[in-house]
Amino acid sequence: MTFTAPDPNFRTRIAESFARQTAMQTLGIRLESVEPGKVTLAMPFAAHLSQQHGFVHAGVITTGLDSACGYAAFTLMAADAAVLSIEFKVNLLAPAKGDSFVMRGEVIKPGRTITVCEGKAYALTGGSEKLIATMSATMMTVTGRSDVQG
Amino acid sequence: MTFTAPDPNFRTRIAESFARQTAMQTLGIRLESVEPGKVTLAMPFAAHLSQQHGFVHAGVITTGLDSACGYAAFTLMAADAAVLSIEFKVNLLAPAKGDSFVMRGEVIKPGRTITVCEGKAYALTGGSEKLIATMSATMMTVTGRSDVQG
Amino acid sequence: MTFTAPDPNFRTRIAESFARQTAMQTLGIRLESVEPGKVTLAMPFAAHLSQQHGFVHAGVITTGLDSACGYAAFTLMAADAAVLSIEFKVNLLAPAKGDSFVMRGEVIKPGRTITVCEGKAYALTGGSEKLIATMSATMMTVTGRSDVQG
Amino acid sequence: MTFTAPDPNFRTRIAESFARQTAMQTLGIRLESVEPGKVTLAMPFAAHLSQQHGFVHAGVITTGLDSACGYAAFTLMAADAAVLSIEFKVNLLAPAKGDSFVMRGEVIKPGRTITVCEGKAYALTGGSEKLIATMSATMMTVTGRSDVQG
Repeated sequence: MTFTAPDPNFRTRIAESFARQTAMQTLGIRLESVEPGKVTLAMPFAAHLSQQHGFVHAGVITTGLDSACGYAAFTLMAADAAVLSIEFKVNLLAPAKGDSFVMRGEVIKPGRTITVCEGKAYALTGGSEKLIATMSATMMTVTGRSDVQG
Repeated sequence: MTFTAPDPNFRTRIAESFARQTAMQTLGIRLESVEPGKVTLAMPFAAHLSQQHGFVHAGVITTGLDSACGYAAFTLMAADAAVLSIEFKVNLLAPAKGDSFVMRGEVIKPGRTITVCEGKAYALTGGSEKLIATMSATMMTVTGRSDVQG
Repeated sequence: MTFTAPDPNFRTRIAESFARQTAMQTLGIRLESVEPGKVTLAMPFAAHLSQQHGFVHAGVITTGLDSACGYAAFTLMAADAAVLSIEFKVNLLAPAKGDSFVMRGEVIKPGRTITVCEGKAYALTGGSEKLIATMSATMMTVTGRSDVQG
Repeated sequence: MTFTAPDPNFRTRIAESFARQTAMQTLGIRLESVEPGKVTLAMPFAAHLSQQHGFVHAGVITTGLDSACGYAAFTLMAADAAVLSIEFKVNLLAPAKGDSFVMRGEVIKPGRTITVCEGKAYALTGGSEKLIATMSATMMTVTGRSDVQG
């Protein structure tokens, strides 16, 4: 699906908002690309993010997928709107084992109040890419709340 | 529901497995209590775990809920079994704003291969406790895999 | 949790809305009780609602859970509002095998736009009741849309 | 993704299993196509399947999506296996308003015990097709249970 961003300044707004997500720095997740309705994040493997078997914790991958989906929704919102996650569901298809990971969020149904997104996480090892998790997420457009901006 | 742990040594096994989850240390999440079918985790608020509005990132809360649910399932598994998350869904009821947080996982349907759990996350502020997120999760018992133990 | 219905006429509104859900009659599902934030539906086993193993189809149980959760949310809405399901997730804990079934929906977080509900379905056989499915659902309050009323 | 069915007789097995799903006949849902890893079902609009606004009930669409996903998983199972739904999540993108509907299920991760599927439901009106719902589902391979076959 092809979308048009209502706010031409959306890339700057997202970069600024992402920079305020301190969890992203803690987890080593960076913003890789931002297009209308599509956002990709990337993170290297890091030994301090593992579960008990040495793979990256499913919750860490989920954190990246949630931000990727939230910002994908955010690209289609007006300049004065904020985005909040209402819910998400994740299917874990394979252990998060790899040199690095990418998390892609994509809008599948934009809406005035509710936007539905899908996310996919991949493990990269050498030259190969493996799908390790899928997300379906519901995002909400919020305006006029002083505690929730951007 | 009341359960009996098949392995009397389950508390030690879980403490050891939890200690190997380096993500828990990175996020400041600790094991608070372990009973058959029920596990509670706790974490203080930390400024390096936030999303863009200054609340704790939903993915961080989810990481704690996933571990709480996984270990709740693990209490009911045999001594040689490992646990893997198959899927989870989270509803975010309120922003993760508080002095500290607890994440509780509980088995609602144990099974030989598949165990279904529910999780609840609470924000603690002063003396009050507020429900901020719910999880439903499917956990799998894994045996005989050399890369997945405990 | 205890709730107060903003519209004292909520029971009548729900009975009228439920009567328009022709799917309920086709599936033999009836309205059993309506309280603020809580709705219970019931259905007998019927041979024309089965999946391939002779149990009631998971989708039929889901249909009842969705209506129970939707009307539970509806009890807390204003007289001119309509309710729409945004999403739901169902965990199937046991086959839907029994003489009859009840589906209970309950509000766990009411809101102006978004209401989160949980549902539980039980199979009744003789005097015993068995939990067979759980739902978590997000419901939306809709006003001012001519195609969506009640 | 392209898959190979381990049992060359899978189309016959699915047709026979589908014929035993009496819920499909009650809802007017028919088997439209079966390929390895992919199953499509179709149903006409019917006035006795509606919710309160006159659209097809979300639970009816979900019933079709669940069967489509279950049989998609079933195409990749051995001849003596049965399939059970463990869980599914549905996002409702638009009201189920149309002349007819198709429900497509597709395997995204096959496995010995657990198979993950995605489903999409479309409303057809005149010549146009509109995505109205998505499902992510976890299916389980069951063998050696006398009450669950095919």
